[in-house]
Amino acid sequence: MTSKCVLLTGASGFIGRHCLAPLEAAGFEIHAVTSRVETPDFGGSNVHWHRCDLLDAAQTRDLIREVSPSHLLHLSWFVGPGFWRSTENFRWVAASLELFRAFAEAGGRRVVGAGTCAEYDWSSGWCEENSTPLRPATPYGTCKNALRAMLESLAGETELSQAWGRVFFLFGPHEAPSRLVPSVARALLRGQPTLCSPGEQIRDFLSVEDVAAAFVALLDGEVQGAVNIASGEGVAVKDLVLRLAELAGRPDLVRLGALPAPSEPPRLEASAARLRGEVGWAPQGDLETGLSRALDFWRGEA
Amino acid sequence: MTSKCVLLTGASGFIGRHCLAPLEAAGFEIHAVTSRVETPDFGGSNVHWHRCDLLDAAQTRDLIREVSPSHLLHLSWFVGPGFWRSTENFRWVAASLELFRAFAEAGGRRVVGAGTCAEYDWSSGWCEENSTPLRPATPYGTCKNALRAMLESLAGETELSQAWGRVFFLFGPHEAPSRLVPSVARALLRGQPTLCSPGEQIRDFLSVEDVAAAFVALLDGEVQGAVNIASGEGVAVKDLVLRLAELAGRPDLVRLGALPAPSEPPRLEASAARLRGEVGWAPQGDLETGLSRALDFWRGEA
Repeated sequence: MTSKCVLLTGASGFIGRHCLAPLEAAGFEIHAVTSRVETPDFGGSNVHWHRCDLLDAAQTRDLIREVSPSHLLHLSWFVGPGFWRSTENFRWVAASLELFRAFAEAGGRRVVGAGTCAEYDWSSGWCEENSTPLRPATPYGTCKNALRAMLESLAGETELSQAWGRVFFLFGPHEAPSRLVPSVARALLRGQPTLCSPGEQIRDFLSVEDVAAAFVALLDGEVQGAVNIASGEGVAVKDLVLRLAELAGRPDLVRLGALPAPSEPPRLEASAARLRGEVGWAPQGDLETGLSRALDFWRGEA
Repeated sequence: MTSKCVLLTGASGFIGRHCLAPLEAAGFEIHAVTSRVETPDFGGSNVHWHRCDLLDAAQTRDLIREVSPSHLLHLSWFVGPGFWRSTENFRWVAASLELFRAFAEAGGRRVVGAGTCAEYDWSSGWCEENSTPLRPATPYGTCKNALRAMLESLAGETELSQAWGRVFFLFGPHEAPSRLVPSVARALLRGQPTLCSPGEQIRDFLSVEDVAAAFVALLDGEVQGAVNIASGEGVAVKDLVLRLAELAGRPDLVRLGALPAPSEPPRLEASAARLRGEVGWAPQGDLETGLSRALDFWRGEA
């Protein structure tokens, strides 16, 4: 077997940190990139950590030269407050292009990038790789979609193999505390009333562990182009919240409708046919398994 | 009137050098960027030349800080051999994003970028800004289209006004000698037989002086988004060649069909409705006027 050496960017981020275990299980030599000053204390002794500011093209080229990876799993991006509309998105396109070019020039074989459901036109509520129009409505979606088109084009001119995992809605350990599942879980665990919107909107949720495992399956295969990283099964946000509350034993605390409904599309569902049929990957457990793990994590953080 | 200060990139290039006179006529203070070591000897005393490698983000930021332009006409790009498929296109996207962001952050008001007919799906033969699908088939077209989408998105988040001039087919003084009009003109002027394909393909041609004037009109207005820089009147390549030969007084030298037909689309025509109706610009003369100027130029170079 040819040896597999992966450079994982965003390795200390929400999805990235969960990629380390499945990458090791898949037999990769792992080079993990972080912009943090202190080397992360997770991942075990088989993970080689590299500190690099990918917004600095010279650092990026030095890193690629040093590691000479066969595979690149590029998850790093600006995810700070206001990321949907931030002009930082444009910097990350430029940085990612430098990374991809340097990787290709150093003889890299396969790239997988992180895309988003925000690349799609949301008006139909249905996201399918080969049929739903691409019509991003935000700088984040526009930049991810533009980068995807350029990665495909770059691969067409080089020896590069490429895929693009479009992430939908996710939750799990180490999620930003202000987001839906952590904020509900922490209120439940404190015994506080949990104020929610009516939660009628339908979304595709996956646990972050499943999202990470799907990215590694995509990286370790040969499928080309965009693939939804999704369960393929829409669920109403209110049902997600109620299941979480039942797992916490406190369904009495949930106040659906206490907050106004967000001005977001009522339905956003994803085809998982490419992921299941072509990549050959499916979630390891059901939604409750993931929610239960998230709840355990937030219990530990309390 | 608010003072207008333009930074013109690619100012020593084929289109850029022809922008200097119309920019001056439109009342712009002109800061012209070139990557050449020697300052160009054209443009007159009202042009402030700046040497800058736009692929170096630090140089770009310094230049923007120094000039603090109100307007940016960005024509610079990789145009060397094999530009259609070169990976240099990806570097120019990154460089252009840095330029646009620096310009916006320094309080710049309006950007016009140079696009291409290669952004369109060519299968129908008709290119109209609001109806023809965008489906570039080359890295050049993909990168230009991706940059356009990101410029529109960046402008949507900032105070920036933006437009994007899509260039079709052009000819004129200082064109690369290997291209159609210069190679035919030079053969005719030498009295040599001019070997051509059958030339049945229909294209939209403008003289480079008209292309430059149209870009300046676009820059000096308020129209947003993509605008074809085109005549709106398709012409068969063989008719262009025959008119050139008649102007040179040597129609006897033209050998249509001596070369095989290229594997290119039979028809590529452009709507000029936005350019004429919204920008309010139309070519100054007819095709023969432009061809006559090109012929005079090549006569002078002989």
